[in-house]
Amino acid sequence: MNYKMIGKFISRVLAIEAAFMIVPLLIGLVDGSRADTLAFVWAILLTAAGSALLGLLCRHETSRFQARDGLVCVGVSWIAMSIFGCLPFFLGGSIPNFVDALFEIVSGFTTTGASILPEVESLSRCILYWRSFSHWVGGMGVLVFLLGITSPGVRGSGFTMHLLRAESPGPDVGKLVPHMRDTAKILYLIYIGLTLLNILFLKLGGMGTFEALCTAFGTAGTGGFGIKNDSIGGYSPYIQNVCTVFMLLFGINFSCYFLLLAGHIKEVFKDEELRCYLGMVLLSTGLIAFNIRGMYETVEETIRHAAFQVASIVTTTGFATTDFDLWPSFSKTILLCLMFVGACAGSTGGGMKVGRLLLIFKNLRRSIHRFISPNQVQVVRNNDRVISEEVLNNTNAYLAAYGILIIASFIVVSWDGYGIATNFSAVVSCFNNIGPGLEAVGPTCNFGGYSILSKLVLILDMLAGRLEIFPILVLFSRRTWKR
Amino acid sequence: MNYKMIGKFISRVLAIEAAFMIVPLLIGLVDGSRADTLAFVWAILLTAAGSALLGLLCRHETSRFQARDGLVCVGVSWIAMSIFGCLPFFLGGSIPNFVDALFEIVSGFTTTGASILPEVESLSRCILYWRSFSHWVGGMGVLVFLLGITSPGVRGSGFTMHLLRAESPGPDVGKLVPHMRDTAKILYLIYIGLTLLNILFLKLGGMGTFEALCTAFGTAGTGGFGIKNDSIGGYSPYIQNVCTVFMLLFGINFSCYFLLLAGHIKEVFKDEELRCYLGMVLLSTGLIAFNIRGMYETVEETIRHAAFQVASIVTTTGFATTDFDLWPSFSKTILLCLMFVGACAGSTGGGMKVGRLLLIFKNLRRSIHRFISPNQVQVVRNNDRVISEEVLNNTNAYLAAYGILIIASFIVVSWDGYGIATNFSAVVSCFNNIGPGLEAVGPTCNFGGYSILSKLVLILDMLAGRLEIFPILVLFSRRTWKR
Repeated sequence: MNYKMIGKFISRVLAIEAAFMIVPLLIGLVDGSRADTLAFVWAILLTAAGSALLGLLCRHETSRFQARDGLVCVGVSWIAMSIFGCLPFFLGGSIPNFVDALFEIVSGFTTTGASILPEVESLSRCILYWRSFSHWVGGMGVLVFLLGITSPGVRGSGFTMHLLRAESPGPDVGKLVPHMRDTAKILYLIYIGLTLLNILFLKLGGMGTFEALCTAFGTAGTGGFGIKNDSIGGYSPYIQNVCTVFMLLFGINFSCYFLLLAGHIKEVFKDEELRCYLGMVLLSTGLIAFNIRGMYETVEETIRHAAFQVASIVTTTGFATTDFDLWPSFSKTILLCLMFVGACAGSTGGGMKVGRLLLIFKNLRRSIHRFISPNQVQVVRNNDRVISEEVLNNTNAYLAAYGILIIASFIVVSWDGYGIATNFSAVVSCFNNIGPGLEAVGPTCNFGGYSILSKLVLILDMLAGRLEIFPILVLFSRRTWKR
Repeated sequence: MNYKMIGKFISRVLAIEAAFMIVPLLIGLVDGSRADTLAFVWAILLTAAGSALLGLLCRHETSRFQARDGLVCVGVSWIAMSIFGCLPFFLGGSIPNFVDALFEIVSGFTTTGASILPEVESLSRCILYWRSFSHWVGGMGVLVFLLGITSPGVRGSGFTMHLLRAESPGPDVGKLVPHMRDTAKILYLIYIGLTLLNILFLKLGGMGTFEALCTAFGTAGTGGFGIKNDSIGGYSPYIQNVCTVFMLLFGINFSCYFLLLAGHIKEVFKDEELRCYLGMVLLSTGLIAFNIRGMYETVEETIRHAAFQVASIVTTTGFATTDFDLWPSFSKTILLCLMFVGACAGSTGGGMKVGRLLLIFKNLRRSIHRFISPNQVQVVRNNDRVISEEVLNNTNAYLAAYGILIIASFIVVSWDGYGIATNFSAVVSCFNNIGPGLEAVGPTCNFGGYSILSKLVLILDMLAGRLEIFPILVLFSRRTWKR
């Protein structure tokens, strides 16, 4: 293990995090919310001190590294980032319990949006900003950001490639351009551009700048933290529809936008994952709208709520305009299943990813064909490209890890005594970085009632879900820590 | 497709089925239950006629066959067997709705034990016998039986090997002896021997012959149909414990018994799957007994109920001595998870099988190790034997098919409006051939309330689960039916 290099990386991540805390500090100063402003001062000092100490300890890094270093680096960076990132909540007293504060910031960075807070309107604006901003940072990934703005200082592209792959969602995140650093830059430029567009559309609907900023952060990261107790429910239909559209846009593979910008429009519309994603959204919205007909006053309202909730769940955002826990079983079941699916690979959304599910489907079809005609050579294709057996193997391993971790978490969490639907949806919701679940963790409720142990398990689930499991799993393997 | 050979096989399966119906016919004659006796007469005539017609149509079979023929043969045989097997229920008026009758017999043959009947004590003994006997036949497989008693009439062992593999549960059912026919014979002899032993122990506890017979059929097939409304709850603690032990015995890979008989005792106790299975049973029983302490009067009673329910669920039998739907969440969650696990490969139990889960675990561990050190060659071993990549691939495909089918069924079934926990546990229970689920399909309830569509989906789930998915899935592939 190349501890020094990992240390140096984490030192840089913490430095960036400390810098990110300056904006909420300024908001706190303007608003005069004393306790929270002080909390940010302390948090910045502690994070900067941590960064400096690590940087000093890991000065003389060597450039030799192994494959596992990339994975470990991502896993440990996110844990370190979360521990320092929850300090403003904890030190300012907004969330007096450390595990709760950690849950909240992990939920932020992993773009889950599950909260332990029963209400948020009493929080100061600087805390609300930090909560929402954590979604924006986590959505595209801190290490991608780091790669985009600084030279990683390591020779060889293998390490940076691995970092980007480990942090970006999806089974098949490729390079857009020859240099990873440029890929990271392009990704962030698209991300910033779409976010600005989102803010613009929200402001056109009459939203204030601060509200628009926070809502856009939550949408862009497909996170789901809001600044109102009723999430997006209180806003105008126009604002709700803007959110629906932008949630769906942020759930699309960013390489599609890159191709669009490069003029390859035909290729984008032929993309199998995109077609599948949009088809699924339309189908689910139609089925749910039909199922909940009569529950709302007009057809427009019915379709709006159905589309919003589908977009919110499939992109794993977790905003809500209505309490879908009151919907009939069929609609709830569709939403629960969409929780597993998630958004497109290479987007800011969570879940298993449409692209990965497509691979699993195609691999299964191949297996069936192999049973039928065992002597034919058969390959799995995606967008006419042959998928390597290694990618298929990793996809299968992902599926197995996914199932095992969800079941194990489900058992531990059930000790707290909530019902089956609550516990199962809580685990599924956290693991897929969605936010709300059903029943006692439904859209109008929160995760505050769980025990410390359950919260820690759910924290690990959120991290494992956001980082596509393996960067967290390798931390628990003995082989990783062997010399 | 070699339709003639498949037809000939199904003709033989139906002939055997007609023969099996003679015993309940005799019971009906002795008891004087007129309507049901007549139903058996008609059922035997119709089944025999079907057999004769098929046999006549498929006289000149050729010996050329393809791999898919074996799978299709198994799938279609089970469907044909179920359609004729439900006739006694339907014609005698015990179950006046045909889909309900089909559900009941599929539940019998697949050893699920889920019932649409609100109570069974009003049924005649010949119907009760047929219900329970269907478990016994389905447990070891009708085609295995057929192979054991008749020469399959096909040159080449590939076809019979495929038949046996497709019908026997588990990822890795090997030959015990060089000839498949002898393997089938040995399996049935062990099966008959253990069943007789079970009957003996039940009779030692004071049970009547008919009750002992039916209970042993339900236990041996790990089915779960009982002849009392309260399942095994009304019997003495001794009887309950006998059931616990025999359920667990029938959940063990039958090749272990073969090895035991051949004197390889050490090998049996070193078997990884067996150790894992027994360890899991002990751990689950311990955890549940701790969780439900105080709910029963004595420690003995607590442990007895915990052990019985764990054995019943893990072997996918589905007998009950108490309403576990009233147990706390943690215990219910453990049982729900055990539903997925199931018994050992090569036993009469259902579920994913302990052996398959072991493979999935080991394959996942290998993937993690590959991430950590990508340049090392790494193989998956079981009992010190290297597992081929083909078996691993099929295991992964099984996992994918398993997940996809359960989710698809879950969505369709949810249209009926029952709660999430009811629908999910109903699908899981049917797919894993267990029987009872939770809430509205809990151990004291039944599946009668579901719609026709849901029942048909659950019927397919039971068949897919019993036949390890692929013999049913290939029936839905276009390639299977292409010339």
